[in-house]
Amino acid sequence: MGFGIAASLLRAGHEVCGADVDAVRVDELRARGGMQQAILDVASQLDAIVVVVLKAAQADAVLFGESGIVATLPKGAVVVCCVTIAPDNAREFARRCDGLGILYLDAPISGGTVKAAEGKLSVMASGSIEAFERASPILDATAETVFDLGGTAGAGSAMKAVNQMLAGTHIAAMAEALTFGMTQGIDPDLFLKVIPKCAGTSWMLENRAPHIADGDYAPRSAVDIWPKDLGIVLDIAKTANFSAPIATAALHQFAAAADMGLGREDDAAVAKVYARNSGLTLPGEN
Amino acid sequence: MGFGIAASLLRAGHEVCGADVDAVRVDELRARGGMQQAILDVASQLDAIVVVVLKAAQADAVLFGESGIVATLPKGAVVVCCVTIAPDNAREFARRCDGLGILYLDAPISGGTVKAAEGKLSVMASGSIEAFERASPILDATAETVFDLGGTAGAGSAMKAVNQMLAGTHIAAMAEALTFGMTQGIDPDLFLKVIPKCAGTSWMLENRAPHIADGDYAPRSAVDIWPKDLGIVLDIAKTANFSAPIATAALHQFAAAADMGLGREDDAAVAKVYARNSGLTLPGEN
Repeated sequence: MGFGIAASLLRAGHEVCGADVDAVRVDELRARGGMQQAILDVASQLDAIVVVVLKAAQADAVLFGESGIVATLPKGAVVVCCVTIAPDNAREFARRCDGLGILYLDAPISGGTVKAAEGKLSVMASGSIEAFERASPILDATAETVFDLGGTAGAGSAMKAVNQMLAGTHIAAMAEALTFGMTQGIDPDLFLKVIPKCAGTSWMLENRAPHIADGDYAPRSAVDIWPKDLGIVLDIAKTANFSAPIATAALHQFAAAADMGLGREDDAAVAKVYARNSGLTLPGEN
Repeated sequence: MGFGIAASLLRAGHEVCGADVDAVRVDELRARGGMQQAILDVASQLDAIVVVVLKAAQADAVLFGESGIVATLPKGAVVVCCVTIAPDNAREFARRCDGLGILYLDAPISGGTVKAAEGKLSVMASGSIEAFERASPILDATAETVFDLGGTAGAGSAMKAVNQMLAGTHIAAMAEALTFGMTQGIDPDLFLKVIPKCAGTSWMLENRAPHIADGDYAPRSAVDIWPKDLGIVLDIAKTANFSAPIATAALHQFAAAADMGLGREDDAAVAKVYARNSGLTLPGEN
């Protein structure tokens, strides 16, 4: 999603410098008109940095680590942190940025790689008015919807956690119901014809169940996302002494899918856990 | 929902004879123009019987029990069975009806009491062409959507089970996520402003979460429905050697709500289980 955001910023006329563990992606951005320098060499001239990594420890490293960028940014620059992290992490990152005269926008995103490439992400954002103002050219170029969740970092990450909790649970619940239906003679196409018109539907069901009906597990969003994101959700829940048995059950199903070697497949492949357990043959399997 | 169906049939110009364990409801239907006789006294003249009871054992009793009606119906009459039952029950009822020359439509309904009163139910129906034909005046008067799930009883009940599995799971998942959000400072109104526009939404979330935000637990659909319906789902699953950990977790939450004495409240009251467990105060509580 980071590449899509960078490409959307280029399209909007911004000067963009890319950084990625995968050098091929950096070259690709340069070929599209991105800056040719390494990011740390231009850090002192940047207005903003957008962080799109997998987890809090990585965000911590790129922001504050040995080669962290925040120490080199000019005063008043803004960090737009799009990573799915715990609200406590967001508050800590904001505090450390503040100590260095850097603005911080807690700005987790949703929409996947396609929406990122189109500049049509949803952003659950919170931070100071100054952080919002400084980040607004970036939000304008990359987001279709920006939810303003208030003046302090953490609120954006909290709402993202709530959304991920539901989204992950609904994918696994869809897979559970679709395969349960198969045991009762309801094939996935019939499931898809009826359930989206009934009270049992969900956004994720309508988006992901067709992947199972088509036997198409090319990853739009991968299984591996969910042990991570639901893990973050349940870590936050644990800290709050909150018991979340349904999300926990969903996490176990994604973890089982990852254990089956399906981590890089589309997250609808969680259906394969149910199929294996109950001896079903999903569409597209021999 | 039975009263709503009977009232819709009256409105459509049919002669309707009501039967209910609650004599007040029968009197109410008579006052609206229903037949004055007791149902068993007119059974031999009926074209159709619509069964809307809570569970399979009750359906069995009213159809085939000591005072069961099927034995008295004229040959070629149709039983429209709207009860949420296992597909095996539906197949057995159809077989027993067939043995007596009676048609059987497996026709579980959804939509709640409001849609029932308006004649706008959704029906997941399966049965012979003759059963569909004979039942069509009833379906016309009571249903907005009829899903034709094929020629044999059981398919309707199977699809209903799939829908209930998802619907119940989504209500409990909504309650889990909404209360989890509260532990992170997200109040239910903010939850409702954001999540319905995100990938985490579901039909049930949008329908039930407002009840929690409003602190309004007047029962549109009661907590007690779900230990029953998810219990039926999990019984079917068990027979099929199908493990459904997410629906199982949802069932436990509804059972906990019933144990708290909330069985007659709106099913959104499952949020009170989470609130109690984590020391939250929901809207409308002091």
